[in-house]
Amino acid sequence: MNRVIIGVMGPSQATPTDCRYAYRLGKLIAEAGWVVLTGGRNVGVMDAASRGAKASGGLTVGLLPTTEQGAISRAIDIPILTDMGSARNNINVLSSHVVIACGLGIGTVSEIALALKADKPVVLLNHSPLSVEFFSQLSPHHVFATPTPEEAIALTRSLVPPLP
Amino acid sequence: MNRVIIGVMGPSQATPTDCRYAYRLGKLIAEAGWVVLTGGRNVGVMDAASRGAKASGGLTVGLLPTTEQGAISRAIDIPILTDMGSARNNINVLSSHVVIACGLGIGTVSEIALALKADKPVVLLNHSPLSVEFFSQLSPHHVFATPTPEEAIALTRSLVPPLP
Amino acid sequence: MNRVIIGVMGPSQATPTDCRYAYRLGKLIAEAGWVVLTGGRNVGVMDAASRGAKASGGLTVGLLPTTEQGAISRAIDIPILTDMGSARNNINVLSSHVVIACGLGIGTVSEIALALKADKPVVLLNHSPLSVEFFSQLSPHHVFATPTPEEAIALTRSLVPPLP
Amino acid sequence: MNRVIIGVMGPSQATPTDCRYAYRLGKLIAEAGWVVLTGGRNVGVMDAASRGAKASGGLTVGLLPTTEQGAISRAIDIPILTDMGSARNNINVLSSHVVIACGLGIGTVSEIALALKADKPVVLLNHSPLSVEFFSQLSPHHVFATPTPEEAIALTRSLVPPLP
Repeated sequence: MNRVIIGVMGPSQATPTDCRYAYRLGKLIAEAGWVVLTGGRNVGVMDAASRGAKASGGLTVGLLPTTEQGAISRAIDIPILTDMGSARNNINVLSSHVVIACGLGIGTVSEIALALKADKPVVLLNHSPLSVEFFSQLSPHHVFATPTPEEAIALTRSLVPPLP
Repeated sequence: MNRVIIGVMGPSQATPTDCRYAYRLGKLIAEAGWVVLTGGRNVGVMDAASRGAKASGGLTVGLLPTTEQGAISRAIDIPILTDMGSARNNINVLSSHVVIACGLGIGTVSEIALALKADKPVVLLNHSPLSVEFFSQLSPHHVFATPTPEEAIALTRSLVPPLP
Repeated sequence: MNRVIIGVMGPSQATPTDCRYAYRLGKLIAEAGWVVLTGGRNVGVMDAASRGAKASGGLTVGLLPTTEQGAISRAIDIPILTDMGSARNNINVLSSHVVIACGLGIGTVSEIALALKADKPVVLLNHSPLSVEFFSQLSPHHVFATPTPEEAIALTRSLVPPLP
Repeated sequence: MNRVIIGVMGPSQATPTDCRYAYRLGKLIAEAGWVVLTGGRNVGVMDAASRGAKASGGLTVGLLPTTEQGAISRAIDIPILTDMGSARNNINVLSSHVVIACGLGIGTVSEIALALKADKPVVLLNHSPLSVEFFSQLSPHHVFATPTPEEAIALTRSLVPPLP
């Protein structure tokens, strides 16, 4: 049966707080019985979220931009090698039932926008007031800002659509 | 010889000002001897920029999200049918030497971010102060805001890299 | 830790033998502890291989050509919604350590060719002599023809590369 | 107005005959007033077809697999930088009204199959009897084999669909 998939997006060059939050998100997503989906690389928010999920016995999927073996996070169970660079960002968000943006890099901005374009709910975690205002104006009904991983997951629970 | 390609991005549901500016951009790009690249559909900024370019005898390329014939702008000379939805936004910006964002929709946000991710210069035309501040903070050295199509083109001229 | 992923490709309008073999392949792949990767739809070889894997408690990943919910096989655990049509065939094979072509449709031909282009080993199961000859001439060292699912899996075992 | 686009596909490591035929195809396509579309690189059939078209004042579009500037054929007017590797093969054929396969490499096989999958007519030039038989069995109504560039173009003329 199709599983619930939660995308965790965020910068590859992440702050310590972003990484700590991402790890915590990964743990909580795994504990909820959901699958963690990330960009798959062994850096930043992607890697932290995947490691957090594995620490709680979760399942992790990573959509890699290249076919480079050395770039894959060891915490990814299922590496999908797209070889399509940043165009894979669209697949990341289309495949996620809810997208959590933990911190903000340039690639993350594209993922938030692509998610909103596809009518996916987006949870912003650890974003600046400027970022929250920008995305909230862009898409008032699909953007949610939260201060902690715990609240992000509580919110996510209410946003997961019923599966067939 | 490889031609200079200028991407004009903007909302499909565009304001009258966005469309007027896009048409003017298309004309000026054609008069500069450059190729206009858009998302290829027969709506909004895409269509207006392509029509402007054709009115001045320019060459127009459109990267379509689907294979739907009826969605292609008649003002596109070269329709490229990607059939990859919004993932084609990445190809739009990678293929453009300079990206001009004329107005702002959700898809445009993804294109600006993908362009900045690829180190492409991005010219913002007719953007709100919030949008200019957001993108300028994200990428201080590659974002340029201009008030008129004429200034956007003058700026573009200084940003086109030398071709081989 | 990254799992071993075996791609099972084949026609959506499959013969009864193709489907029976695909189901058996899915079971055997799951029993080997590997992940089954397919094109994800609820038809033909894709669906049969995924159902076989689930019958033995395996894990299944499907790379869908569209975002259409109703087209996803119920036997897929992880649906990846590419929304890029047949271009997703390249991701199918890049993400598989070994590709098994069970039967032959037009899409399957593209997958075999894309796999060989990427230097992936391809196992042909239930192919005509013409097909075996065509692909063997194209790529003498990466194409292997087998008559039964059991032999296909024995061969696959010898072709799986060591994971990091 | 949308132009007629003819895709010329073939090996990057091409035989002298393939290259001579590709150059001739490019010239004849340009003389017919059509646009030549290729994989865009500066090698093999792609490069020869583009050079032939430019020698007759034609317009050339190339869909590149990477963003590498040094790999682009100088005979390409419009380089489209997909950065999606062999997945761009699908865009090549979707964007072509008729696909001419001049010679046969592994990538060419994928392009022929993807074209047939999308119901595009495919003209085989300089193919072995094995290849002609294989593809004719696969898709009896869309595959056409011809011995010379001149006949390929005559056939193409009858296969170009009416444009809107």
